Formats: sequence, C-alpha cells, structure tokens
Amino acid sequence: MVHAWLDGQDNWYYGTVKEMRYKAIISYKGTNFSGWQIQKNSISIQEEIQKVLKEIFKQDVVVTASGRTDAGVHALGQVIHFDLDTTIQADKLPFVINQQLCADIKFLHCEEVSPGFHARFDAKAKTYIYKVYYSRNPIPLFDQTSLRLNKQPNVVDMKEAAKHFVGEHDFISFMASGSEVKTTVRTIYSLEITEDEEIKFTIRGNGFLYNMVRIIVGTLLDVGYAKIKPKDIIKIIDGKNRELASKTIDARGLCLHSVEY
Amino acid sequence: MVHAWLDGQDNWYYGTVKEMRYKAIISYKGTNFSGWQIQKNSISIQEEIQKVLKEIFKQDVVVTASGRTDAGVHALGQVIHFDLDTTIQADKLPFVINQQLCADIKFLHCEEVSPGFHARFDAKAKTYIYKVYYSRNPIPLFDQTSLRLNKQPNVVDMKEAAKHFVGEHDFISFMASGSEVKTTVRTIYSLEITEDEEIKFTIRGNGFLYNMVRIIVGTLLDVGYAKIKPKDIIKIIDGKNRELASKTIDARGLCLHSVEY
Repeated sequence: MVHAWLDGQDNWYYGTVKEMRYKAIISYKGTNFSGWQIQKNSISIQEEIQKVLKEIFKQDVVVTASGRTDAGVHALGQVIHFDLDTTIQADKLPFVINQQLCADIKFLHCEEVSPGFHARFDAKAKTYIYKVYYSRNPIPLFDQTSLRLNKQPNVVDMKEAAKHFVGEHDFISFMASGSEVKTTVRTIYSLEITEDEEIKFTIRGNGFLYNMVRIIVGTLLDVGYAKIKPKDIIKIIDGKNRELASKTIDARGLCLHSVEY
Repeated sequence: MVHAWLDGQDNWYYGTVKEMRYKAIISYKGTNFSGWQIQKNSISIQEEIQKVLKEIFKQDVVVTASGRTDAGVHALGQVIHFDLDTTIQADKLPFVINQQLCADIKFLHCEEVSPGFHARFDAKAKTYIYKVYYSRNPIPLFDQTSLRLNKQPNVVDMKEAAKHFVGEHDFISFMASGSEVKTTVRTIYSLEITEDEEIKFTIRGNGFLYNMVRIIVGTLLDVGYAKIKPKDIIKIIDGKNRELASKTIDARGLCLHSVEY
C-alpha cells in the first residue's frame, strides 16, 4: 500500500507501509463533547482521537465506532476500529496514545484484528446503562452522569413495565423521528432496573434505533410516575407510533457500557 | 445582636438582626479544591460557600463542618452549621444558595436547629466510602472519584482482614503522624467491601483520626496483594505504631458519605 505522510517538520514522505487493522476499547466522559461524530464548529470524540493519532503516528487515521453517541452521552466500553502502520505492539498502544489524549477520553485495550473486522457491522450485542437519581437539589458527584428526578418514581411499577420490552419487537414507537433504517425490528435481551443511591436501567439488545434507550427510559419513568400503566407498554409497542411513547430524556444519564462481537 | 455589613455598592449597614442557627447537608466534588478548610493561595470549599453566603445575604457567615476533608476528597452528605439572619424559609435556602454556588458544590437540605447545635461536636457517627477500580489504563468516568489499581487485589482476603477493624480499638497505627488528639481510641461499627465495576470500602464509625480511612484502605489493599496476611491486622492494631500500617492512599477515592447526629 502506498502512503504519503507529513513529519513534524512539514516534510512529505512516501512509501509502502504495512497497515494493520486494530480493534480498541475506549472510554469517555461525554459531557464536554458534541458527541462521537465529527461536526463543524464543535469538538467531537472522533475528531479528538484522530487528531492525536495523527500527531503521534503522522498518518491520517479514520476511526470507526460501533455506533455514534450523541452529545453528552458517555462510554465505558465503546469499540472502534482503525488502520495504522506502526511497529508498536498493540497492547502497548493504549499507553502511548493515552499520553496525548485529554483526560476525558482514554484507550483501555487494543488488539490486532483481521482486515475485515468492522466495529459497527460486526457488533452482535450492545449494553447501555441509563442512570437517574432522586434529589430536590443537584448532587455534584452524580450530576454529569445521571439524570436528576424531582419526584421519586415507583420502581416496582417500572420493573413490571420493563418486562414488556424484552424480546423481538418493532420498536418504531421508540425511534426518534426522521431516522432512516432498513428495519425497526430489534431484540432486547434484557432490561434490568436496580436501585442504589441511583436507579440504573441496564438494557442489552442486538441493536438500538436512534434515541431508543432514552425514549424507553423516558417511558419507563412515566410508568414510575403513574402516567402510564405497566401493561400499556404492550399497546405503545403495538401501536407503532412515536407519539405513543414518552419524550427523549436527557443525554447525561446514558452510557454505552459494552459491545459484544 | 448588632451587625455591620456591606451591600453591593460598598455601603455599610448596621442593625439588630435575628440570627438563626442552620444545619445543612451539602455535597461536593473535591477534585478542584484544596480541601474543606480556608487556606491562603488556594480555593477551599469553606471559602467558596462563605463567599456565596456573603454575596447573597450581605453578612459575614462562618460555616463549620462535621470535619475537614482534605484536598481531592469528596462529600455526598457533609453536614455544616452556620448562623444567618434571613426571612427565607430554611427549606427554600438550598435553592437560593445553589443558584450562586459553582457546579461542584451544592446544598441538598437545610433546616433550623437550636443555637447550641454543633456540626462537629454533636456528630455521633460518620460513614465514608473509598472506591478503587482495576484497569491497566485510566477510565475517565471513574478516575476523579476512584483510585485506579494496576493489579487486581484478592477481595476474599480483604474481606477477611476487614473484620479485624470492627469494634473499639486504639487506632494510633492508622493516624497520620503529627496529629494532635485527646484520644486515639475509636469505634468502627462496620467495614463492608462490595464489588461491582469498582470495589467499594464502606466504613462507619463513631469518629476517625486524621487520614485513618485512607491508611486503613491502603493496608487492606496490601492484604489484597498478599503483602500482609488478613490476621496480621490484629498485630498492626496492637502494635500501636504508624510504621506497621501501610501508606496513606490517594484522596480521590474517598467520599464522606453521611454524618449521623
């Protein structure tokens, strides 16, 4: 493969390079970013990573994620792939790259994969966690990663309602309008609600439509506030109409927990 | 009581005011502060709160905490008291004060108490949580509130060792040198270790010596790394010598969870 690249002194180099495909697990706090994808006039996570890879390796590297995350959404285990020519061993790459990355984005793991591996198309399942907490006033330790609730929701009712999401369904009622996808059928493998100082919604499925997790959790919270009965979730799914489900709730409580291949 | 205060235009006012004593529960993320106590050339939590109270109420208010927290230490439920002359109802004060406070410090609750109430001297028990996580690389979502470990500790051994701390003991081996206290005897009511994505050490006692929680958790981690045997905790306590216990670990993992009265 013939490549051209600039070194730090603006000299162009040309040569045949041996690129490898890498799969990496990365983690980020999304609060101060415009989301995953590169956009004009705002700082995205993708841009920040590509900028650092270019600085270190003097190559234009495009990183592809398992899926885009919106502004303010976090990731504990986002998966990306990219092609890179380096003699540094894959397991040493996180250390090298993390030295240059800002504190809000870090590489946790990196490995060589076959050239056909694709972070998005090869993903078999994803787990998201949405966190909320109940407090009349904001709690600084929670506030960037958890949605504050003014009222205490009924968790028993939310757990009852959560069961109805599990399985293969057409989730078009839970997709942000204007999205374009081949099919709106997805399978939710599990949706668990646990209570600690925060309430955690852990949802695992084979794929998620745009804003699907945030609309599902918003709808569950309306169950928790007795605006919707637990069994009405069935009607909302069967109705196949975005108007039936609740609004998309704030991004700050959402975290892409892990991606399975 | 005769008071003098400045308004926003630098005019002095004098008058007789009806002060009330207030107890408040506050929460803060300690990362960007030099600790609780006012110090020269650095921003403390106490200073930030007193500055805001002066701005709002045009009074010099001194806030007293249940205990000082060090630089980088967090609080979910620190308790403070202060005297203030205001016609605003106590339960409305958090909202008013939070408007002016920075995002890292918030009032969660406020109530009127008798003039004799003292946040420090009346405290009957405190609970601290220390969090650690194991990862070869920093995880941005955990890194400011949890200590990163390079090796995975043996949690079974740490749980075995933790039992030996419970009860009334002379904890002088677990006190930072140079501290001055009347007695180094304290009672630990419970010390629980739970595992999730982070390992949490939850410790409740009638009081804690300077750096005691950070030295106890540091010692437990050395048990987790097989440097100390679980039953040797007894010898370390009985030895009454700071040299026998492990080093004081990083402040970032420590959070004052709650104070009981």
